[in-house]
Amino acid sequence: MIPTKKSIEAAHERIKPYIHQTPVSSSESLNEMFGVEIYFKCENFQKIGAFKMRGAANAALKLSSADLQKGLATHSSGNHAQAVALAAKKLNTKAFIVMPSNSPKVKVNAVLGYGAEVIFCEPNQKAREKALQEVVEKTGAFFIHPYDNYDVIEGQATSAKELIEEISFLDKIFCPVGGGGLLSGTLLSAAYFGNNIPVIAGEPEGANDAFLSLQKGEKVVLPSVNTIADGLLTSLGDKNFEIILPRIQAIITVTDEEIKQALRLIWERMKIIVEPSCAVPLAALIKERDKFQGQKIGIILSGGNVDLAKVAEWF
Amino acid sequence: MIPTKKSIEAAHERIKPYIHQTPVSSSESLNEMFGVEIYFKCENFQKIGAFKMRGAANAALKLSSADLQKGLATHSSGNHAQAVALAAKKLNTKAFIVMPSNSPKVKVNAVLGYGAEVIFCEPNQKAREKALQEVVEKTGAFFIHPYDNYDVIEGQATSAKELIEEISFLDKIFCPVGGGGLLSGTLLSAAYFGNNIPVIAGEPEGANDAFLSLQKGEKVVLPSVNTIADGLLTSLGDKNFEIILPRIQAIITVTDEEIKQALRLIWERMKIIVEPSCAVPLAALIKERDKFQGQKIGIILSGGNVDLAKVAEWF
Repeated sequence: MIPTKKSIEAAHERIKPYIHQTPVSSSESLNEMFGVEIYFKCENFQKIGAFKMRGAANAALKLSSADLQKGLATHSSGNHAQAVALAAKKLNTKAFIVMPSNSPKVKVNAVLGYGAEVIFCEPNQKAREKALQEVVEKTGAFFIHPYDNYDVIEGQATSAKELIEEISFLDKIFCPVGGGGLLSGTLLSAAYFGNNIPVIAGEPEGANDAFLSLQKGEKVVLPSVNTIADGLLTSLGDKNFEIILPRIQAIITVTDEEIKQALRLIWERMKIIVEPSCAVPLAALIKERDKFQGQKIGIILSGGNVDLAKVAEWF
Repeated sequence: MIPTKKSIEAAHERIKPYIHQTPVSSSESLNEMFGVEIYFKCENFQKIGAFKMRGAANAALKLSSADLQKGLATHSSGNHAQAVALAAKKLNTKAFIVMPSNSPKVKVNAVLGYGAEVIFCEPNQKAREKALQEVVEKTGAFFIHPYDNYDVIEGQATSAKELIEEISFLDKIFCPVGGGGLLSGTLLSAAYFGNNIPVIAGEPEGANDAFLSLQKGEKVVLPSVNTIADGLLTSLGDKNFEIILPRIQAIITVTDEEIKQALRLIWERMKIIVEPSCAVPLAALIKERDKFQGQKIGIILSGGNVDLAKVAEWF
């Protein structure tokens, strides 16, 4: 069932001991530069360095203790893997994480560092799903999908809820879209806690399935994707699209070049480390800033886990 | 005259409209890793991206309005140049900044961006001082020395004052030392507002004149210096050494390799951008962590102005 106002409030109370209430930051120089007043919700300072901890913790905490005991499982090479691993550690259970054999070592080590068991598979979707199914069958562990899951969406919704509670006068909220977990949660919180503040998503041109799906009114799956914003390569989930379609105000697509420029601005002006995916909503706002002059804009900065060896390719 | 408790309190009130009260951050993972409880005072989030704004603003604000009208001057290729330029802009006067002709374009542009006039000179100390003298004679502008100036020291002292007021239970404060402006201010605030909390400085091995000066009991000037921590290349000032010598508990020197490791930890674990100079006190703490187990340590993160093109050399 689509999360309700009450269920998101309950989720927030449930996960509070396991997450940070992340800070909201502003930059005078960015505001002057673009003629808007931006409030950045800094999920890069969240546990495991990304908003994903909210959804993973919520899904895990809603399990019965008998189910929880069997462990948590997921397939992911990114932030969700770390979130499930840390949730399992905090709740004294096991985590089984299926990762493609070509995952960056730094990400594998992060997951191992939280005490999870890593199962390697061939680097394709089919192999991932097969390996996951085998793990689940063998261990009885509970599969937490990275985004196509109402409990995960309910957890991700708490980021926008905190932002709206702290900054009560926002005109718009901008947020990135990949699988749609953060965006669908943000839309629900904007409706429930923000009197339906309009929400606008930023999406990379090289992975613009949400943009095309919105245009067509039905889910479009792309044959291939390519963008610097590696957290947004995934396709929209069904449950996510169901929430997004009737509620979203607009999706603005941006090029990798625009993403890099926005990324540099956040690093240089705000002195904080965010992932390329994180810079997508700012890139979208900059691109269409004429429409938003003088407005108060909330932007959810989704995460800050970067491979520093890649920085030379970006700047 | 060496700043007093009262004069630092007055300086803090004086500069408050022109500076940020910067946040204090912690990292569970760093604390676990090293067995200490660290409170980072984030001056990288200060105006112009470094603590230097405090001292420059204080020195400028103490001028008579007649003197202020003639403008501010300094020679610097770093954060102090930006601080003087911004202070002049905020106080509606001119700034004349002497910069070496080989200064990175990004730094020149930052200074120009604050509306200052840049005067280029040959890249050596003599040429800098000569160019500065000419500017001062021609314009009557007031020279604000980057560190060897009591009003500047008084301003820099307000960072540790804020840290101590927010975190009242610190066992030690760690701070970097270059010219000694921040360190001397920190020592005064630790004495006046922190019941003489011990202060320990971190210094790069490749520019260890403060370490040697402390050993010898008199100021040592090095024939040449070389370190990744480019904010700490300068020699100790006379007024700074006078304050440091009788008050400092210890100076710990660290190699460039140790600085890089600490820098990476701050970027990766805390998701904030700091300069190499900024990582020096953490590197010092890590090096001698056995002495500080279980202690509550304040660290002043001095600034976050980095040239992103250089990142590839560091990581």
